[in-house]
Amino acid sequence: MRGAVLYGPRDVRVEARDDPKIVEPTDAIIRLSATCICGSDLWPYRGLDAAEGPSPMGHEYAGIVQEVGSEVRSISPGQFVVGSFFASDNTCELCQAGYQSACVHRQGVGDAQAEYLRVPLADGTLVATPEIPPDDLVPSLLAASDVLGTGWFGAVAANVGPGKTVAVVGDGAVGLLAVLAARQLGAERIIAMSRHQPRQKLALEFGATDIVEERGDEGVVGIKELTSGLGAHSVVEAVGTQESMLQAIRSTRPGGHVGYVGVAHGVELPGTELFFSHVRLHGGPAPVRRFLPELIDLIWNRQLDPGKVFDLTLPLEQAAEGYRAMDERRAIKALLWP
Amino acid sequence: MRGAVLYGPRDVRVEARDDPKIVEPTDAIIRLSATCICGSDLWPYRGLDAAEGPSPMGHEYAGIVQEVGSEVRSISPGQFVVGSFFASDNTCELCQAGYQSACVHRQGVGDAQAEYLRVPLADGTLVATPEIPPDDLVPSLLAASDVLGTGWFGAVAANVGPGKTVAVVGDGAVGLLAVLAARQLGAERIIAMSRHQPRQKLALEFGATDIVEERGDEGVVGIKELTSGLGAHSVVEAVGTQESMLQAIRSTRPGGHVGYVGVAHGVELPGTELFFSHVRLHGGPAPVRRFLPELIDLIWNRQLDPGKVFDLTLPLEQAAEGYRAMDERRAIKALLWP
Repeated sequence: MRGAVLYGPRDVRVEARDDPKIVEPTDAIIRLSATCICGSDLWPYRGLDAAEGPSPMGHEYAGIVQEVGSEVRSISPGQFVVGSFFASDNTCELCQAGYQSACVHRQGVGDAQAEYLRVPLADGTLVATPEIPPDDLVPSLLAASDVLGTGWFGAVAANVGPGKTVAVVGDGAVGLLAVLAARQLGAERIIAMSRHQPRQKLALEFGATDIVEERGDEGVVGIKELTSGLGAHSVVEAVGTQESMLQAIRSTRPGGHVGYVGVAHGVELPGTELFFSHVRLHGGPAPVRRFLPELIDLIWNRQLDPGKVFDLTLPLEQAAEGYRAMDERRAIKALLWP
Repeated sequence: MRGAVLYGPRDVRVEARDDPKIVEPTDAIIRLSATCICGSDLWPYRGLDAAEGPSPMGHEYAGIVQEVGSEVRSISPGQFVVGSFFASDNTCELCQAGYQSACVHRQGVGDAQAEYLRVPLADGTLVATPEIPPDDLVPSLLAASDVLGTGWFGAVAANVGPGKTVAVVGDGAVGLLAVLAARQLGAERIIAMSRHQPRQKLALEFGATDIVEERGDEGVVGIKELTSGLGAHSVVEAVGTQESMLQAIRSTRPGGHVGYVGVAHGVELPGTELFFSHVRLHGGPAPVRRFLPELIDLIWNRQLDPGKVFDLTLPLEQAAEGYRAMDERRAIKALLWP
């Protein structure tokens, strides 16, 4: 098969690779209908996460089951399925509590920017659609695999709900889908923090009611001005830097919630400030599996259209251009057709 | 009147001071029935919080109202009242949300290791008992003012409830009363982390079901061993150091809650570890006022006996000995009779 491999900073190549095979009896092999490039893929692409040797890339996937191991019960060849970047048994105490991304048997799923993918713990990881979806639903179903599921978790971790004022720090695909999630979860007011016109436009389309263009402490002032000086009830952090975390914490009112889903890089939270802020912090790698049945249902019934976040669509062979476009912020998110 | 003043590290003196007077029409003056020394008073006592010049000490109080300002409506002279270390209007949006310690009009109440005390915003800050309490209830009512209210908030912030396994980091008075709060809130299992016999004994009396003596990462191993390797559902942090915060975070299962009430000193939380821990963090200066009516009721009806935490009782004149005994860990908490 063909698959994308990162050889070093800004050096992505699509090359011939071995087809994946069933290794464990709980595995499934999927022929990918679509895959995509994640904001978090840009960390290693930019050389900011050290990689040892060539690294197959990708962890977002949706497609048709080709083959299952002998112990797989609930997933069958021919089904269209969506899964998450962490495989989970979905039965352990942590999974049952809704933290499948901390499953005691969790395994990372990588290598998804390719034609075929091996998914471990298929029964606990994959969720099938009611039927084979029409082509126009595939981007949205792919989005559920990570970027929507992660934005959704950010909103849930930030306790978004009816009557709440929500701010979203970060106008990448996750931040934009956190806006969509906040709208779906009934937020009264949704403030997107963005200085990029096309992203502002999509944020407004997804349900943002206000835009704050400033960043850092000026951005905090902007949020305070819109919230009687108190700060937002719920703030989603979708970047992962020191500046964005502090911006999120400082934009939240005492007793309010920060849901942080940007993969933390170089973040050190000052304990004294956190203590006196009275905010609640929750986040981490999204337990996407918790939300998949609901998200698939919303997409299937065309109540949510997260696929709009893909503003660049390329054949898998041109993955390198997808990375370049996202790195240069020419594209919000690139979908790849295998 | 007489009152305790900190002149420098380990130099507390009780001396003649001006009687407090009504300054604002919303003030009340209280004749203190009892006051006490807080674990947080030990930071400046040890020279770890810089003080500028002589500092009157104390912020825990209960006593009889002597006089009220012209705008005070709900509190009258002759009532026995309990209040918190932050005066609050109890009407603003943050107070109404239960964060009176972040009230938009909040004022610190200091200077309580004395005979008389001025309390601002009396209507919003003070809660009266049904009648003048019998003497033996006074220590418990005093405890509600901070140390019980703070331990209680730690347990609430850690989402303690029926069926939960709770761990408490810190065996000072706040930690011990967090154990009592956890029992009252219905926790199934309560693990006190302590290596001091008299404190272990009191923890068991307050409802602890298990003791872990180890600290730091060894303490974490102890908690994991008692929780099927997963960590506690709820962990109360009642110290405020880097070690204790990390111990609390690492003792909590993914999706579990850390309630931190130890005043943070020199704490820097590592973002990456926090991100992958999946824990929920909440804490800060306790909004004691939120809990006072309930706590006073429980004490009044003799369902809670937090006064047991005072294992040293001295006349106010001997405040310096109270500080020494707590500093040297000879006493858990010293009550002072004015």
